[in-house]
Amino acid sequence: MHASKFSVNTTAHMQFVDITAQAQQAVSESGVNDGVLYLFSPHTTAGLTINEGCDPDVQQDLLGVFQTIIPSSYPYRHAEGNSPSHMMATLTGSSLIVIITGGKLQLGTWQRIFFCEYDGPRNRKVTWKVIAG
Amino acid sequence: MHASKFSVNTTAHMQFVDITAQAQQAVSESGVNDGVLYLFSPHTTAGLTINEGCDPDVQQDLLGVFQTIIPSSYPYRHAEGNSPSHMMATLTGSSLIVIITGGKLQLGTWQRIFFCEYDGPRNRKVTWKVIAG
Amino acid sequence: MHASKFSVNTTAHMQFVDITAQAQQAVSESGVNDGVLYLFSPHTTAGLTINEGCDPDVQQDLLGVFQTIIPSSYPYRHAEGNSPSHMMATLTGSSLIVIITGGKLQLGTWQRIFFCEYDGPRNRKVTWKVIAG
Repeated sequence: MHASKFSVNTTAHMQFVDITAQAQQAVSESGVNDGVLYLFSPHTTAGLTINEGCDPDVQQDLLGVFQTIIPSSYPYRHAEGNSPSHMMATLTGSSLIVIITGGKLQLGTWQRIFFCEYDGPRNRKVTWKVIAG
Repeated sequence: MHASKFSVNTTAHMQFVDITAQAQQAVSESGVNDGVLYLFSPHTTAGLTINEGCDPDVQQDLLGVFQTIIPSSYPYRHAEGNSPSHMMATLTGSSLIVIITGGKLQLGTWQRIFFCEYDGPRNRKVTWKVIAG
Repeated sequence: MHASKFSVNTTAHMQFVDITAQAQQAVSESGVNDGVLYLFSPHTTAGLTINEGCDPDVQQDLLGVFQTIIPSSYPYRHAEGNSPSHMMATLTGSSLIVIITGGKLQLGTWQRIFFCEYDGPRNRKVTWKVIAG
């Protein structure tokens, strides 16, 4: 199977969840040795990013800076009150790719893949596809 | 045909234009049932993003926040005066991907694909490619 | 060969390095006429973007705005002191794609591909893959 999805259940309003293991599992399920993994967030107040996974303080700093640079007091029109979360989603992006070699994700030494929750807690999902080549 | 382009004519200095229908049309033209759609903006003061399309206030809020966080009074060197537009382009990104299953773009319930004009109005284009897999 | 990497040695703390020639060389090495090029930065304090390459002032303006909007005085937890660099990496993104037609990258007239150094100078690398289709 070369395409499917997995669940990410977040537990805070803003949270980075390390999904590297699920991403590698997706590659294993696909049976593809060489190709590209595509991850996609089907949500409008969440994103996907790759950053340092060794020190959890980095994730906290990133969330803190997002809250600092996106104003909470701007005269937002959107009545749901979560426009800052939508902005963070656009700044982060809904998709990412990782190159696969020998059945393994070609991440750098310190890199981990994160699901970025900006309007949780919620039950989220990540869709994926692997293309061989 | 698995690659082509379509036009987006913007009507304001900053504007999000919903291009989901053109993107789905590209997939239909390709004849590909399962694969990945790549969209690419060949411009340096525009971008592509996926966000909520139901309430147009979200798009207005995103444009408002971009204008709030990118300073207009910074001592920019670039003589054309559109450095904030270039910055927004880099923050948004020039390309995006959407997974295709059964000939349909696999977008979330509230997701729409937007061309992001940051230095209009202009006649723009979006190039696309579909790879089966 | 459809996948490999190349080096980028940066010479400043923050710097955009034009890697368009290396990217085109990667396409030539792959021998692929029609497909997609994937570029990936395996680093957590660097990114990849596409923007104007004609006037180097644009690159300087982008770096200046990054330093303006990401606070340096925020109470960062990460002890290495480079949390702003990590934030810039997430805002820029670790990967990008370019469509290939007739063996050539389909970039816009003013577009160039940049490696974005946010915590240099360092010896960096960019990994790439080409998929035909």
